[in-house]
Amino acid sequence: MKMGRVIGSVVATRKDPSLEGVKFLVVEQLALDMEPEGGYVIAVDAVGAGLNDTVLFAGGSSARQTDVTRDRPVDAVIMAIIDSFDAYGKTTRLT
Amino acid sequence: MKMGRVIGSVVATRKDPSLEGVKFLVVEQLALDMEPEGGYVIAVDAVGAGLNDTVLFAGGSSARQTDVTRDRPVDAVIMAIIDSFDAYGKTTRLT
Amino acid sequence: MKMGRVIGSVVATRKDPSLEGVKFLVVEQLALDMEPEGGYVIAVDAVGAGLNDTVLFAGGSSARQTDVTRDRPVDAVIMAIIDSFDAYGKTTRLT
Amino acid sequence: MKMGRVIGSVVATRKDPSLEGVKFLVVEQLALDMEPEGGYVIAVDAVGAGLNDTVLFAGGSSARQTDVTRDRPVDAVIMAIIDSFDAYGKTTRLT
Amino acid sequence: MKMGRVIGSVVATRKDPSLEGVKFLVVEQLALDMEPEGGYVIAVDAVGAGLNDTVLFAGGSSARQTDVTRDRPVDAVIMAIIDSFDAYGKTTRLT
Repeated sequence: MKMGRVIGSVVATRKDPSLEGVKFLVVEQLALDMEPEGGYVIAVDAVGAGLNDTVLFAGGSSARQTDVTRDRPVDAVIMAIIDSFDAYGKTTRLT
Repeated sequence: MKMGRVIGSVVATRKDPSLEGVKFLVVEQLALDMEPEGGYVIAVDAVGAGLNDTVLFAGGSSARQTDVTRDRPVDAVIMAIIDSFDAYGKTTRLT
Repeated sequence: MKMGRVIGSVVATRKDPSLEGVKFLVVEQLALDMEPEGGYVIAVDAVGAGLNDTVLFAGGSSARQTDVTRDRPVDAVIMAIIDSFDAYGKTTRLT
Repeated sequence: MKMGRVIGSVVATRKDPSLEGVKFLVVEQLALDMEPEGGYVIAVDAVGAGLNDTVLFAGGSSARQTDVTRDRPVDAVIMAIIDSFDAYGKTTRLT
Repeated sequence: MKMGRVIGSVVATRKDPSLEGVKFLVVEQLALDMEPEGGYVIAVDAVGAGLNDTVLFAGGSSARQTDVTRDRPVDAVIMAIIDSFDAYGKTTRLT
């Protein structure tokens, strides 16, 4: 998993039928200092994430292991919203 | 998933038999400002995408979770056509 | 998938038993202008590709969805030989 | 797999229900000279790893092949703690 | 697959129980001119590879398609030892 920040969403009415009702969020990838790493991913929301939330997202077949994404053609999922994390002895609180 | 723009297509008559009738599109990857990121992917079309459409594509085993791609040797699929998206508070309309 | 050019082959007599008779080809990855992108992959041939052919190859678990590769420890397969492709309004014929 | 060093952990109370009780660790990726390679991954701990441990981690669907991670939406797992390794004829002891 | 050279091994006594008896080798990735590409991977040996052997390794779920690796949390496997390869009309013999 990587850390990311929700910065937007995508609207798509023509899509694979299995994706009806699925919410696509735009996530920028974050470094451990909370700065953007320069990339983004469009991930399905499985946990009710909102704009500016700092989240964990998973990719590949692992992205299909939630009730929202199972058997669907999606390769990235937000599976947790981060409250805080420690890195190099420093704690960062996000909520 | 990533955002991409359909910029062409591929014709291949010699191929794995399971790929008969499958449409291969050339997709350039887009950054959030709609500029090309420099890479491309050949993706199977599962939603009737056409030239210049802005699309979502998925990779890996997730690319096989549509009726068009199931059990076939393809690792990228267009699974949605984007109408609009928000990023950093700005809305981009595409249709 | 990506486009590649077959530039050679690999001989390996000590290998996983399931790989008996499998043909390993050296493929250089191509950009859309047909220039090498700088990387290579060793891919299993599932379509009778030969030296200098321009091909499509797929990676990951999708590489195992052909009769030649099913249930075998290979992560790249040539699943089509390209006749021609269009990109940015220009057609490139290869056969 | 890659080698990494455990440098922290992540707390997330809102998450996919299947992730209750799962421990998320922050792992920096290491080069063979034990210097950080510049990237990080958030990995699930399957072996009781602790801060500053040097570990092996696996990604993709392989990350779900432990009792801790099976069928869960996680794409990285710590599956071993390294005691020592040899590279280029030099042995590095870590415990 | 990619070509690599076995340059060492890893010892890990605390690990997922399914990994008992599995041999972890350090593999540096090779370019087609046999020079290191700069990266490394820790791969499970499925073919009796030894120090300095030039090998083929596969990643992702494909790494689990050998008797040694099946259902285990490993994402890279050495599945062949290279005798020779051709590239750009030049043959390189390794054994």
